Amino acid sequence: MNIRIERAKNLKEKPEGALGFGKNFTDHMFVMDWSRDKGWYDERIIPYGPMVIDPVAMVLHYAQETFEGLKAYMGKDDNVYLFRPEMNARRFANSNRRMCMPEVPEDMFIEAISEIVKVEKSWIPTGEGESLYIRPFMYANQSGLGVDEADSYRFMIVLCPVGAYYPQGVNPVKIYVEDELTRTTVGGTGFVKCGGNYAGSLAGQVKAQKLGYTQVLWLDGVHRKYVEEVGSMNAMFLVNDTVITAPIEGTVLAGVTRDSIISLLKSWGYKVEERKIEIDELIEKGKSGELKEAWGTGTAAVISPIGELFYKGDKVEINDFETGELTKKLYDTLTGIQWGNIEDKYNWRKIVK
Amino acid sequence: MNIRIERAKNLKEKPEGALGFGKNFTDHMFVMDWSRDKGWYDERIIPYGPMVIDPVAMVLHYAQETFEGLKAYMGKDDNVYLFRPEMNARRFANSNRRMCMPEVPEDMFIEAISEIVKVEKSWIPTGEGESLYIRPFMYANQSGLGVDEADSYRFMIVLCPVGAYYPQGVNPVKIYVEDELTRTTVGGTGFVKCGGNYAGSLAGQVKAQKLGYTQVLWLDGVHRKYVEEVGSMNAMFLVNDTVITAPIEGTVLAGVTRDSIISLLKSWGYKVEERKIEIDELIEKGKSGELKEAWGTGTAAVISPIGELFYKGDKVEINDFETGELTKKLYDTLTGIQWGNIEDKYNWRKIVK
Ligand SMILES: Cc1ncc(COP(=O)(O)O)c(C=O)c1O
Ligand SMILES: Cc1ncc(COP(=O)(O)O)c(C=O)c1O
Repeated sequence: MNIRIERAKNLKEKPEGALGFGKNFTDHMFVMDWSRDKGWYDERIIPYGPMVIDPVAMVLHYAQETFEGLKAYMGKDDNVYLFRPEMNARRFANSNRRMCMPEVPEDMFIEAISEIVKVEKSWIPTGEGESLYIRPFMYANQSGLGVDEADSYRFMIVLCPVGAYYPQGVNPVKIYVEDELTRTTVGGTGFVKCGGNYAGSLAGQVKAQKLGYTQVLWLDGVHRKYVEEVGSMNAMFLVNDTVITAPIEGTVLAGVTRDSIISLLKSWGYKVEERKIEIDELIEKGKSGELKEAWGTGTAAVISPIGELFYKGDKVEINDFETGELTKKLYDTLTGIQWGNIEDKYNWRKIVK
Repeated sequence: MNIRIERAKNLKEKPEGALGFGKNFTDHMFVMDWSRDKGWYDERIIPYGPMVIDPVAMVLHYAQETFEGLKAYMGKDDNVYLFRPEMNARRFANSNRRMCMPEVPEDMFIEAISEIVKVEKSWIPTGEGESLYIRPFMYANQSGLGVDEADSYRFMIVLCPVGAYYPQGVNPVKIYVEDELTRTTVGGTGFVKCGGNYAGSLAGQVKAQKLGYTQVLWLDGVHRKYVEEVGSMNAMFLVNDTVITAPIEGTVLAGVTRDSIISLLKSWGYKVEERKIEIDELIEKGKSGELKEAWGTGTAAVISPIGELFYKGDKVEINDFETGELTKKLYDTLTGIQWGNIEDKYNWRKIVK
């Protein structure tokens, strides 16, 4: 790639104090365009700022849009690290195929990320649990109201420094098991990071929050009984000495964190079952005490312990609403590897060169 | 409403010849903004043109976006008519509720449409089958990457003159019954005019087109056997002397055309059944000759005859791939009412005052 760089004339002040998530963006962004004739062209890093869009840009009407999310970490050796970016590159290509959008070749995806991260190196925060969140995204910017594949798309990367997801530390959350609204089915877009999934799931999230819950646990859309995802995280359950999580069969996002956690668990000798589990079984195991721990996995929060499940009037508390031992160990190990405090046996960290 | 009007300095040339769909937009557009503090504010009609959007405007990432579609017709009495706009107003409110977006009060929705249509009256084409397509839409324009309801939205209306949907006249199309990909389930967003539905359905459409079919007939996402919609249209089947169409139970859009056609059919003494019908039954009735006619209904094409169904290797031709008598009569009657050539017994046409 031949990336043109146009530096911002005025640099922003770096935010101070708690960073939050997705609020402060860096000085530059990566942009490249695609047309059916030319393919990808005009790769550029330019000052972060507003863009021009036509009122009938197809993305505003038919939501042809996909995204990714990963983080850059400042190493103690002054190198910058990414965590398994090739997994995001592959997932992004999968998403774009399902949405009839052009693929960004995986090496181009990683090169673009590397280049913008290098330009913004001074933005990578170095406090405990802090990192630079990377948001690659693509959308149909062709003008027109015919429902069809677009002939032009834009791919961009924006960056924002983020703090520890839970400033008060990792604490269990209460989860509402949604039994009316659905998210997806096999044959749909559940495995895709496309905007429509998130817009469609908001109603569940808002309902759960009104009832005092932090997030929704989604059941499968066909039988409404198999456990799928929790908000924007994959969900895992320690039942006796086995960790159970929904299989990647078209409805659940293939989380990078999920995959990493499974590797850690297996290396520690845990049995891991990627299989359907019925919510009724889970609630039963909760009542009998066999459901020892539960947690969500995702890039933003890494691991989020689940302290309570509410399902159709039934409440089940997990591990006395305390963060479980295994949950804690997973969090400490994975964040340890990500931030470079623990040996990276799996070669998951990639130096940004 | 207190709509500020800023007139365009230079007016565009009106397009000549075949108008197509969704390609040429008029000189002005309606815009109004919403914030959690202020509610709707700054209603304005301004020159049509590009807008400014932030790279992290939530619509570009999480697709909180809804739209509507209806038409304005030039009457022979020099009045402008809308067709049942109150149905679109209500459906838009329903869509926005499901997507956790603010509602546009129904009278405001109709007033905004009326005002922009009056400003653009000279754009309403008067040729055979021509009209002015009206596209109201709303999207989350707040900046930020947290997945949540937005605190600010924009509502807009753009207009484009459109010709007869099928320039060569109304002819039957070949339809591919999709048996792998799914569109929605009860509890999802199938009944909503939200962008995500259209992005998600593109893969089916592209696949069908590659195989030589014009559109997809979607089956329900749970059992994959009940017939739902055909592309962006509701689907109807004349089996013996009964018209069967999918019920409005959360998966299918409550089409304005569908509702109007049902009224016409009933007034003519046809039995209409809004019920689930299995694709296997339909294919069987096709083979036995009991499936007499089939068509899609929607604002853009009004009525689109279905001449062939392809399902899992089975092909069924309907009415010898000719437009059926009832299909033709429905098309002529409804377009007759819409364009003011046939008495409007139902009071469906609304004068734009
Ligand atoms: C729906 C959904 N599930 C799961 C995840 C977790 O994926 P990852 O671990 O790659 O962040 C995400 C993304 O963060 C998500 O949006
Ligand atoms: C998915 C879908 N179904 C059906 C219809 C038909 O609805 P209407 O008759 O109101 O245009 C539309 C809109 O045109 C649609 O997008």
